[in-house]
Amino acid sequence: MTKLRVHNLAVSIDGLATGEGQSLEAPFGHAGHRLMGWFFPTRAFAAMTGHEAEAAGAGTRGVDDAFAAATNVGIGAEIMGRNKFGPQRGPWHDESWKGWWGDEPPFHTPVIVLTHHPRPDFSLGETTFLFRDAEPAEALEIAREQAGGLDVRLGGGPTVVRAFLEADLVDHLHIVVVPIVLGRGERLWDGLEGLEERFDVESTASPTGVVHYVFSRKAR
Amino acid sequence: MTKLRVHNLAVSIDGLATGEGQSLEAPFGHAGHRLMGWFFPTRAFAAMTGHEAEAAGAGTRGVDDAFAAATNVGIGAEIMGRNKFGPQRGPWHDESWKGWWGDEPPFHTPVIVLTHHPRPDFSLGETTFLFRDAEPAEALEIAREQAGGLDVRLGGGPTVVRAFLEADLVDHLHIVVVPIVLGRGERLWDGLEGLEERFDVESTASPTGVVHYVFSRKAR
Repeated sequence: MTKLRVHNLAVSIDGLATGEGQSLEAPFGHAGHRLMGWFFPTRAFAAMTGHEAEAAGAGTRGVDDAFAAATNVGIGAEIMGRNKFGPQRGPWHDESWKGWWGDEPPFHTPVIVLTHHPRPDFSLGETTFLFRDAEPAEALEIAREQAGGLDVRLGGGPTVVRAFLEADLVDHLHIVVVPIVLGRGERLWDGLEGLEERFDVESTASPTGVVHYVFSRKAR
Repeated sequence: MTKLRVHNLAVSIDGLATGEGQSLEAPFGHAGHRLMGWFFPTRAFAAMTGHEAEAAGAGTRGVDDAFAAATNVGIGAEIMGRNKFGPQRGPWHDESWKGWWGDEPPFHTPVIVLTHHPRPDFSLGETTFLFRDAEPAEALEIAREQAGGLDVRLGGGPTVVRAFLEADLVDHLHIVVVPIVLGRGERLWDGLEGLEERFDVESTASPTGVVHYVFSRKAR
């Protein structure tokens, strides 16, 4: 069976996955870039932004990069929440919005966008966006059909990840704990008491100060 | 200036320093021993329980032990909350309660017990307990007078540690993050937004799965 994988989900040491006051200009709210400060300097991030040739000589190559580089390996489809796709809420007033990522989105696979307000699927570069109103199990089934025998990545945001964890559908969960006390925002761990019983947990401290946790689903 | 130090304060990955439903039989509530499971196997813990000779050949000697062993080094006094001293609340109905620790408490220094209900000081073995109704700054002053030029340890519980952090009196904060989602209990980080700005932070992952954080107060 292929796996459902979460990568690079950053939380503050007080368990918040995003700050308060999210907007188009401040997608992480008052957290700013502090939750992803470990990620942006990596070679893997440079490569994801579409400049593979430039990235060859750029970026860090340590443990943060190693984890970041695993993000796309063996992935055939992504599932994301609508809030990751764009800032609009409710019915689609503006279908010209095609995501944050320009003409060549970094996914290069089908992407299932979960929304209660479907709109026509479309392709952009090598990425196809499919809009579906589906519960986690059904969404995973759709994504697996699209993934061509490869794994499915669960792209977030935190609300979506929590819903799939509650439904016990996640096989691989990579969490990055950033040593800041964010104080306000969206809690990742709420409703997940005893989560560790279903997973083997490994932790790796990076010299940059973050700690990488890998939760690996125990064999059923 | 001597330092105010916190050691071995364990929290779950969702930021809870103790479980729900604390009682005489369950001092950590529904958390049970899970928050201190890294600590009990160490040589340092064996030594603290008073059997130094037995401890010589017992217990683990890895990074968990190294952190645990630092607990008493250079300490001349402890400050603790009343709830750490015992399970009674309100006025002292039973002054025969002399703590959890038997005839030779493991402190071997003066211990300031913070309480709104003072009772006579007393000595037991090499430890003297002083009961004081004091705000954090005043309590620290009292403890420093007692510490003979050595550091003061802030022994907890979490409410007391948080109060001293809010008052910006803590110089060294050793936190142990345990990879469990406790779900319910007392939050350590509440009210401490931006704490990291006042500290240098170092993280070390232990093979046992916990992560040791050292928050070192930046020079003023």
